[in-house]
Amino acid sequence: MGWLGYACCFWRSALLRAGRAGLRVGPRTASSGPRDASELKGELDRFGGVSVHLARQPALHGLDATAFRRLLQAAIQQWQFEGRVAAWLHVPILQSHLIASAASLGFRFHHAESDSSTLTLWLGEGASRLPGYATHQVGVAGAVFDDSTRKVLVVQDRNKLKNMWKFPGALSEPGEDIGDTAVREVFEETGVKSEFRSLLSIRQQHQSPGAFGKSDMYLICRLQPCSFTINFCQQECLKCEWMDLEKLARTENTTPITRRVAGLLLYGHREGFDKIDLSMEELPAVYTGLFYKLYHRELPESYRATTGTD
Amino acid sequence: MGWLGYACCFWRSALLRAGRAGLRVGPRTASSGPRDASELKGELDRFGGVSVHLARQPALHGLDATAFRRLLQAAIQQWQFEGRVAAWLHVPILQSHLIASAASLGFRFHHAESDSSTLTLWLGEGASRLPGYATHQVGVAGAVFDDSTRKVLVVQDRNKLKNMWKFPGALSEPGEDIGDTAVREVFEETGVKSEFRSLLSIRQQHQSPGAFGKSDMYLICRLQPCSFTINFCQQECLKCEWMDLEKLARTENTTPITRRVAGLLLYGHREGFDKIDLSMEELPAVYTGLFYKLYHRELPESYRATTGTD
Repeated sequence: MGWLGYACCFWRSALLRAGRAGLRVGPRTASSGPRDASELKGELDRFGGVSVHLARQPALHGLDATAFRRLLQAAIQQWQFEGRVAAWLHVPILQSHLIASAASLGFRFHHAESDSSTLTLWLGEGASRLPGYATHQVGVAGAVFDDSTRKVLVVQDRNKLKNMWKFPGALSEPGEDIGDTAVREVFEETGVKSEFRSLLSIRQQHQSPGAFGKSDMYLICRLQPCSFTINFCQQECLKCEWMDLEKLARTENTTPITRRVAGLLLYGHREGFDKIDLSMEELPAVYTGLFYKLYHRELPESYRATTGTD
Repeated sequence: MGWLGYACCFWRSALLRAGRAGLRVGPRTASSGPRDASELKGELDRFGGVSVHLARQPALHGLDATAFRRLLQAAIQQWQFEGRVAAWLHVPILQSHLIASAASLGFRFHHAESDSSTLTLWLGEGASRLPGYATHQVGVAGAVFDDSTRKVLVVQDRNKLKNMWKFPGALSEPGEDIGDTAVREVFEETGVKSEFRSLLSIRQQHQSPGAFGKSDMYLICRLQPCSFTINFCQQECLKCEWMDLEKLARTENTTPITRRVAGLLLYGHREGFDKIDLSMEELPAVYTGLFYKLYHRELPESYRATTGTD
């Protein structure tokens, strides 16, 4: 069960509780008086959890790790009393001296990036149902194919043990669409300009080397060349050329995926690219107003009308 | 430029340097004597970087944050002198009091998980060319379609504002294959057993709600039912039923992606699933001995022979 499951299980119980208002928690007796600045200020989320941003806590001013531990311990007891299922702690990097105190009370890292980290503690019953963090890096390669000459753009990396012909490509930047990565990387590596046409294949690999223990999703796109002059990156590539597609499909000197995609392109070249392409469409998300890109086999006109997608 | 670019740019220069052996760095004079336990022990990587695991540092025993800062500062000077392009600091959660010292010298979080964090400092020229961490969460839904009755398994989430019919699914667990997520989630949500048949569509969305600022890759698989009795999770689902596919393709009460995939399934049901499927094959990776799963349009027999993939 992932995030959705987590969301569903706690939505209702959260709504039955104290609403969305801020909640102060801290060391206080049963007959608690007015809340003061010595308390941690937590914010409820709609899943029954509570979030504390250490950057926004007046109570922490000048506090050492031991005093913070007492404050946090009291807060945890209060959250448990109130039936919270999870606590989230957002820690600016310069307040990291407080992390070990939180860890001694059971908090663990959920994620960290740049100048802050986020820790979590599960307070609900059974095993934690908190959603995990990103699990995949995304790499994209571009197969730039010129239908008129039957040639495809391939490179040999400079620094691999075996010099295999492959399509130029690398990791996506954060927030970058698949097709944009392919076009950008092809240009940076080879100097050739191109346009996105379709998605051809997807590879999923776990514990990928260089992915810091995470999984890798590697996608190959079909691109249409807009220029043909090669001016390749000498640091990255040993060779770069426009190679006859059938030669690439038959050479031993390539990776299994490159050869497989060469076979797909050959099929598309002879029988029509609609046989191999996943076409792309941009659509609005239902709730958020954001847009996403959807890839699948092209539907014939008659079925588009059926499903109201044209 | 991503990890691959990083790898390529520094591979050669790294090979020209001191090799793979461990390297001790620390405060020392120009006429340095024997190295001692007051130094940080770094390990070179093949990209010209140096990694320090704080858990393996005898020099840190009993050291406070200020003394650690002096030690690290001297080490950074030494690494710069030796031409290292990057430093990596691996910090056990209980040593997190040292993080702020590292941050004051320019280190930032690269990532953190469970009981440790990793910080980086770029020492090379220009902007950092260090590879990022995982950028995507992966969600999977299963479209369980019974060709003989033309019915497809759909659910309504209990807790959404609008009760839309959709395919059961949720986030992948770390290291889980796409098809396994689909089969597992369908069973957990509906009680129906199924088998993976193909990949139908891929959606990429950035800044996805609930993804902690990261991107979301959402894949829909076609599954073959192995059982038909519905026993759905009351916490997660409001309704669950086998719905006529054409009804799903025409209803207003569904998401755009569900309707789109219903159209695809209708097309496959009438014209053959080879028209809509991306088939899956497991293949060995070239260098690592690991296996990966590759998805693309099925190649006709004649093209498989051409490209030696059968």
